[in-house]
Amino acid sequence: MTRTNTVRGDTSPEKAPTDSWRNQQANEKVVVIGAGPAGIQAALDAADLGADVVVVEKEDGIGGKPIHEKYAALAPDIVETEEVYGPIIDRFLNHDNIDLRDGSEVTRVKGKKGDFTVTVENGDDKDEVDAGSIVLATGVKHFDPQDETQFYGYHELDDVITIVDAEEMLKDERFVRPSDGQTPETVAFVQCVGSRDRQIGNTWCSKVCCGVASKQAIEIKEQNPDTDVVILYIDMRTTGFLEDQVYWKAQEEHNVQYVKGVSTEITRKGDNVLVKGDDSTMGRPYEIEADMAVLSVGMEPSEGTKQMADVLDLPMESHGFVKTEKGPMGSVETPKEGVFVAGGATGPSNLKDSVSMGGSAAAKAVAYVNRNQ
Amino acid sequence: MTRTNTVRGDTSPEKAPTDSWRNQQANEKVVVIGAGPAGIQAALDAADLGADVVVVEKEDGIGGKPIHEKYAALAPDIVETEEVYGPIIDRFLNHDNIDLRDGSEVTRVKGKKGDFTVTVENGDDKDEVDAGSIVLATGVKHFDPQDETQFYGYHELDDVITIVDAEEMLKDERFVRPSDGQTPETVAFVQCVGSRDRQIGNTWCSKVCCGVASKQAIEIKEQNPDTDVVILYIDMRTTGFLEDQVYWKAQEEHNVQYVKGVSTEITRKGDNVLVKGDDSTMGRPYEIEADMAVLSVGMEPSEGTKQMADVLDLPMESHGFVKTEKGPMGSVETPKEGVFVAGGATGPSNLKDSVSMGGSAAAKAVAYVNRNQ
Repeated sequence: MTRTNTVRGDTSPEKAPTDSWRNQQANEKVVVIGAGPAGIQAALDAADLGADVVVVEKEDGIGGKPIHEKYAALAPDIVETEEVYGPIIDRFLNHDNIDLRDGSEVTRVKGKKGDFTVTVENGDDKDEVDAGSIVLATGVKHFDPQDETQFYGYHELDDVITIVDAEEMLKDERFVRPSDGQTPETVAFVQCVGSRDRQIGNTWCSKVCCGVASKQAIEIKEQNPDTDVVILYIDMRTTGFLEDQVYWKAQEEHNVQYVKGVSTEITRKGDNVLVKGDDSTMGRPYEIEADMAVLSVGMEPSEGTKQMADVLDLPMESHGFVKTEKGPMGSVETPKEGVFVAGGATGPSNLKDSVSMGGSAAAKAVAYVNRNQ
Repeated sequence: MTRTNTVRGDTSPEKAPTDSWRNQQANEKVVVIGAGPAGIQAALDAADLGADVVVVEKEDGIGGKPIHEKYAALAPDIVETEEVYGPIIDRFLNHDNIDLRDGSEVTRVKGKKGDFTVTVENGDDKDEVDAGSIVLATGVKHFDPQDETQFYGYHELDDVITIVDAEEMLKDERFVRPSDGQTPETVAFVQCVGSRDRQIGNTWCSKVCCGVASKQAIEIKEQNPDTDVVILYIDMRTTGFLEDQVYWKAQEEHNVQYVKGVSTEITRKGDNVLVKGDDSTMGRPYEIEADMAVLSVGMEPSEGTKQMADVLDLPMESHGFVKTEKGPMGSVETPKEGVFVAGGATGPSNLKDSVSMGGSAAAKAVAYVNRNQ
């Protein structure tokens, strides 16, 4: 990895190709915006194809949500994040063709159709990168449960947390009740917080939360087998191999309970929390008392996705994510020639989706650069 | 497209590069096995990256399930198959770097690590292709509902069809009851046929059937607004934008009914069919009389996937699909160097998944060939 802030006209001799195959490739740069799972994969695949890749990441350090939000283990395999992601990050950081600019932002993109000038700012430093193609991989943000729209008490009650908070506690192997640091006797997961909800304006399903909650339930039971865990869900959307590897496993090996219903409110009850809801199929309300509630918060377009779509003048689809071309037969092409998109910027995506789209965008970004040489 | 049966040492002068960018690329071939959505995308992206691509497809003609099984419109956009897939197929058929061998099968693969010899047989013709890398894209087959394991009467009752049969009828704009050719007054969809079912050995969720059934329900109502449609489901797994674009739309704009329950048996009742099941949440049985039942059959590894995994000596994951590396952080790499996999061969996949994986596999297959030049 090279870490230089002067890029315009960068023909650093240390980047001269040493292998014959790299010599055969284009010299125009591919700019990848965002260094989460999709961006890292896009950069690696483009770099492996011989392209010079500049990666712009606004955070200090790379890895995206699995690193910054300290994901413990990843479904459906329930394998440690570092075990599968660590070697990928290492290869990214050591790739000769990848020039990482972290702590930096893209503030302007001029030009079109394979002749872009990308302005990258890092504090007072401002550089311009000539790019043949651009991959947008700016991801999602998690829904923030505010009481203006929902009555789940996230910002008011200590013992109401989100799956993001839970992930970090599980990684530290210290899943406890925040108010007193004790191991909880009962934990209730509330699904679809910030998803499938017309009132708050998020009408989509966030796709991963059913699998994440079930995975976390298994991890809670592995760490504290005496804790009772209940998952309050509308539909259990553990598609593909998540079905038996996570959902069935949670029930059969760990006695996790699943109750179908829409939770409407969480209040305090003595030292505990009380989750109230409507069992739509039974046609009656329920109240579940628990030591802790975990809110399965959904995904929204990140601020970075909105900003970069604006900078790149990209149209959004109806939910506010970046619009892609070719309907169900496409996934990474935008209406703007030479600009590709991957991962959560396109809509709710799991890790496999993100790395597939990252690789696919890399193929198209490099082919686009080659075609325009 | 070139159509020659002599490939070994093929240096056809008509394939000499005319553009500078193509001249920069590797000469080793990429072999793609399967010409469905994943294989077509893999071939196109690899060819656009300058690789010479040989595509082997056992059927006559290309396109995979959306073409051979006559898919009408594709979810979530509900756009005509030809509208989005047609131009992709045309570009594939006219690409100078793609050599299609349809009606052919790969019968043997010798060598390893970027030095493969692939035997392609077409009737009595046998050719050997030297390949630098291989992409397996052999897809899925639909579950065949046999009465040995389930009692849905598919092979016994005329008016029990599958979503595959329904797709062709909808494409022809003639959705009628098979027994008498009349427009049905009531249609009942039965979900999870051949999925989420330990008894038949398919423990996975097939991922797409909830969206497909809801899409078909909308199309039935568009063609015959007076037909009543009910969907009998375990969980409604319309993830991402399928939630509002298909599931909500079916209910709100077309009055499609959804009933949560596990259907156990379909019998004849007079001229109609009777769907019996257990409403798991209500704790009581149900019986629904309908003019027709549509079985939402799931996905299994195709025969081609099993055969090619055997020919390539690839390990399978626990459900019988091709095993991929890197857990949730990977999607297309197999344990065998230089061999990549995309689409339904890896597990239940929708079209977006398949084209993303196709592109991602192309990037890695071409980089692998370049690296070994």
